[in-house]
Amino acid sequence: MFKNLTDHIARFVSLSEDEQEIFVSYLKYKHLKKNGFLLEEGQVCHGNYFILKGCLRLYFVKDNGNKQIIQFAIENWWMTDYTSFEQKIPSGFFIQAIEETEVAYIESSSQYDLFDGVPKIERYFRLILQKYHSASLMRLQYIYDLTPEDRYRHFYGLFPQFVQRIPQYMLASYLGFTPEFLSKIRAKMI
Amino acid sequence: MFKNLTDHIARFVSLSEDEQEIFVSYLKYKHLKKNGFLLEEGQVCHGNYFILKGCLRLYFVKDNGNKQIIQFAIENWWMTDYTSFEQKIPSGFFIQAIEETEVAYIESSSQYDLFDGVPKIERYFRLILQKYHSASLMRLQYIYDLTPEDRYRHFYGLFPQFVQRIPQYMLASYLGFTPEFLSKIRAKMI
Repeated sequence: MFKNLTDHIARFVSLSEDEQEIFVSYLKYKHLKKNGFLLEEGQVCHGNYFILKGCLRLYFVKDNGNKQIIQFAIENWWMTDYTSFEQKIPSGFFIQAIEETEVAYIESSSQYDLFDGVPKIERYFRLILQKYHSASLMRLQYIYDLTPEDRYRHFYGLFPQFVQRIPQYMLASYLGFTPEFLSKIRAKMI
Repeated sequence: MFKNLTDHIARFVSLSEDEQEIFVSYLKYKHLKKNGFLLEEGQVCHGNYFILKGCLRLYFVKDNGNKQIIQFAIENWWMTDYTSFEQKIPSGFFIQAIEETEVAYIESSSQYDLFDGVPKIERYFRLILQKYHSASLMRLQYIYDLTPEDRYRHFYGLFPQFVQRIPQYMLASYLGFTPEFLSKIRAKMI
């Protein structure tokens, strides 16, 4: 059931059978229908979610009522609002399934027991966070450095599977475009 | 000498005297003149740097030859290129002192000995990285959500000490403006 996740962990740290068993005993499972929520604005984010199957988006609602998507996550990505998760304070974000989705998750209430029981899992999260931090810097770099059209081409080159799966108006929001602008770019590329 | 750093760590994890002594034995110290480099493009980044005093910038050189600043770091911030540091591969970035600067740093070659000796330090870095990850997401949010003028006001409100210390043309690069545009906004604010 959690094989995708244990395989992913094995790419970063090597767990003994005992450690793997302890780790798995801390995992919870959730199935979400399309459009189901894992977090809504004002709630405390109690889970750190690993996508076994499906796709999540993290967004906030702007003053003008529009949704601004900050992140997508598909299979083998983690998603949470770390500030809310770690400090147990209300979140300003929504986490929503945009397809039927299955997640494994760790609860904030048991996170430290897990780390104390299997310190390599804390190492795994440090390494994952380093990757995510580097990815955020790269993303900032592309925002400043590329024209909107090149930003789309670049995104398409890196993540073709996203572009196939995600509704175009959501992709436009993520890339900071209007849907009309994205349609124009796509028409030019064909 | 490293009191700023041990005080900073104490805000996240609590070390025994023995642990603190082991930790400090792994630290190195470097003094940089203004404009000195800790990292240049093509080099492997061997250090994770904590600013005891001074100010660093992380930037890359764009195809047109301009410098794009991605991050600043002042006292009590860490700076490194994590991809290069962790994987020991050449970096695409420069890390440069924009004032006379003193850093404490951990070498990539001894990082894992330190974590094995004092696991709470690995926890500290996981928590720091969570904060940096959340900050990157907030920054992306502001880029999309605010007008350039409001982005400057917001930055000024959050980091007045940066705005005082950093040359205006560097701040313009960081915020994705031309220096002329930044001058106009500042003139309007006075």
